[in-house]
Order: sequence, then C-alpha cells, then structure tokens
Amino acid sequence: MPARQVPDIVIGRLPVYLRMLTHLMAENKLVVSSKELGQRLNISAAQIRKDLSYFGGFGKQGAGYNVASLHAELSRILKVEEIRSVVLIGVGDLGRALAHYGGFANEGFQVTTLLDNDPNKIGTQIGHLTVEDVRELEPIIRERGIQIAVITTPAHAAQGIADACIRAGVRAILNYAPITLQVPEHVRVQYTDPVMHLQRMTYYL
Amino acid sequence: MPARQVPDIVIGRLPVYLRMLTHLMAENKLVVSSKELGQRLNISAAQIRKDLSYFGGFGKQGAGYNVASLHAELSRILKVEEIRSVVLIGVGDLGRALAHYGGFANEGFQVTTLLDNDPNKIGTQIGHLTVEDVRELEPIIRERGIQIAVITTPAHAAQGIADACIRAGVRAILNYAPITLQVPEHVRVQYTDPVMHLQRMTYYL
Repeated sequence: MPARQVPDIVIGRLPVYLRMLTHLMAENKLVVSSKELGQRLNISAAQIRKDLSYFGGFGKQGAGYNVASLHAELSRILKVEEIRSVVLIGVGDLGRALAHYGGFANEGFQVTTLLDNDPNKIGTQIGHLTVEDVRELEPIIRERGIQIAVITTPAHAAQGIADACIRAGVRAILNYAPITLQVPEHVRVQYTDPVMHLQRMTYYL
Repeated sequence: MPARQVPDIVIGRLPVYLRMLTHLMAENKLVVSSKELGQRLNISAAQIRKDLSYFGGFGKQGAGYNVASLHAELSRILKVEEIRSVVLIGVGDLGRALAHYGGFANEGFQVTTLLDNDPNKIGTQIGHLTVEDVRELEPIIRERGIQIAVITTPAHAAQGIADACIRAGVRAILNYAPITLQVPEHVRVQYTDPVMHLQRMTYYL
C-alpha cells in the first residue's frame, strides 16, 4: 500500500467520499460517476479521480464507480471496517452530546468509556454507559486496549489528559478543548475548535 | 491584498497561529521565532515562514516575530478584529454546549441568536439569550444582518435550514449535522463531523 506517498489532505477527503457513498447505497444507487460525486460534494470531478488514483484504479473510464465496491475499498483503506473503541473524557454538555451521537456506530466507532473528574457525574448513567473516574484513566485504557480518545475537558485540563492517554496507548486524539496539544510524533491529533472553523471562513467574507 | 493566490490550506492554518499568539501574549512573550512557534504547534518552521510570506514580511531574518504585531496582523487578515454575530440553529445538547462556549467572545464571534423548532424550547433562556422560533429564521437573520450560521440540527433538517439561512443572507456555515450541504459558490461551509475526523486518523493507526 502506497501509504506514505498519499498527502494528508487526500486522506482527509476520503471520509467525505465514504459518507456520500453510504448515502448513495441508502438510495440504492449502484453506479456513480466522478462528475455526479463531484456535484454532490462541491469537489471537482478531476480532484476526485486524482484522489482515488492514489489507491489504484476504481472504475473504467466513462463507466463510473461501482458504489458498493468503492465503499468497501475506502472502508478498508481508512480501516473502519471493524468497530474501534473510543474513550471520551469530560462529560459536560458537549461530551454528553457526543456520547449520545448516533452517527458513530455505523461508521467504525463506538464510545465504550466515559470519564470525568466530577464526583456528581461519576457513577451516573449516560445511555448504556456508566461515567467512570478519570483517575482510573490509564489502567482503564490499557486494559481495554483503547487507541482513540475524544477530549472534551476544559482547556486547562486537556494537555494532562492527553499525556495520560498517550502513556496508556492512545494513538489518535480528537480534541475539542481550545488548546493546541503537544504530542509525540506517533500520535495523531484532530482539532474541532469551532472558533478556528469560523475564523477560517471569515477570511472569505 | 493577494487574497486569491493564498491556498485555502494556508488560510486554515492562520487561526492556529493566531490562537498560539493569543496564548503567547497571555504569557507576556514579546518575540517568538518561527522555530519556537513550530515546536509549539507541531508544524515545521519552514512551513510557518512560507505561510506567513503570502502576506508580506512579518519579521527580520533571525529576529523572530513581534508577537503583538503578528497577532494584530493575522486578526486583520482573518477579519476577526470586529465581533461578528452568529446564529445557532438547533438547541440540543450540542447546541447548548456551543451556546455556553466561552471561547467565542474574545475571538471575533458572538452567538446572538438561538433558534429551535421545539415548542418546549422556544421562549426558554440559555445564558442571556432566549430561544426563538425557527419559523422566524429568515426575517430574524435579515433584520439582524447575520452572515454566519452554526447548524446543530439533526441531519434530515440541515439542508432546509441551510437553504433558508442562505436566502436570508448567510455566507458562512459551520455544519455539525452529519450531511454534506449543497450550497451556492459564494457560501463557505466548514464541517465538524466527529466521525470524519476520527476516520481521517484511523488511516494512520
């Protein structure tokens, strides 16, 4: 697999394609052209063809892509065929919203562990999960072999939580706390700070 | 201003730089080198220098950047010197979390309007705001001259809401609903679907 040669920006678009393919499968669409995909996603057809070409040929020129095969192939490339356990740290409004979020289950992820430091929250039930004590973070993550963490703590707590997660074996962090995390090279971080998303758009206003 | 020549990926990093500069100002740091900025942000110093060079010279070779001037300049470039009104549609757990989010005020944004379609929510107070009826969306947005919308509705409602927002004058949408929105070319959309962020990282696991 030519993993190292694929730009991260291309990897970032694969989940977008995958979600649209899921949508097309639900519409019972069997074949889709790069043109139609492009129109639906506001991405040029040429860009889509170029992105997919990093991973080999997925369709014959002019024949379009087989929706189900491309979906399976992208799922394989993104390694989301199996369900991965996710630990969520910080059960405020946002953490609770994510814990309830229905979108994870069919897309390769399951929040299996909720942690907080608030004695009033520890032991309470959210959905089918019980909030556990964040002081147990390291043994819990190790024992359950969790590699993915979602951090929804206040900013001041996030770096310490990230450090502990990484010590315990986490290799991917989705960070909602409004700070930039310092992490070793083998760990990936994605940020979802609403302010940064908004600032990126106001440039164009 | 060389706006059209700056790649969007560069624009996407400016808020990251800006946040770090805010942080450095709080530390009373006067000058910062691209090397130190890079180390703090896990971005190469060369990348930072290249990104900033799109906007002219910000520092003398070897002397580092003046933290306050660079902060002011990036704020100007991103147009976040003034506070912009934001409408938030969909006051569930996530919407409430965002309405309470303290990070907006100092970064150029203020949620001024909360809308929902639930009669049990309309008229209730969240912070200092009253939830208003989403059926009034268009006149409210027009009257208040709001250009930025945050959509935290369920997926099935999001496209209709986006269409109405755009008719009323919205030009930037931060979309938390797990669907890809169809929008005209003059409208920017940013997505913050947690699933897509997670999928982007599992590729590297």
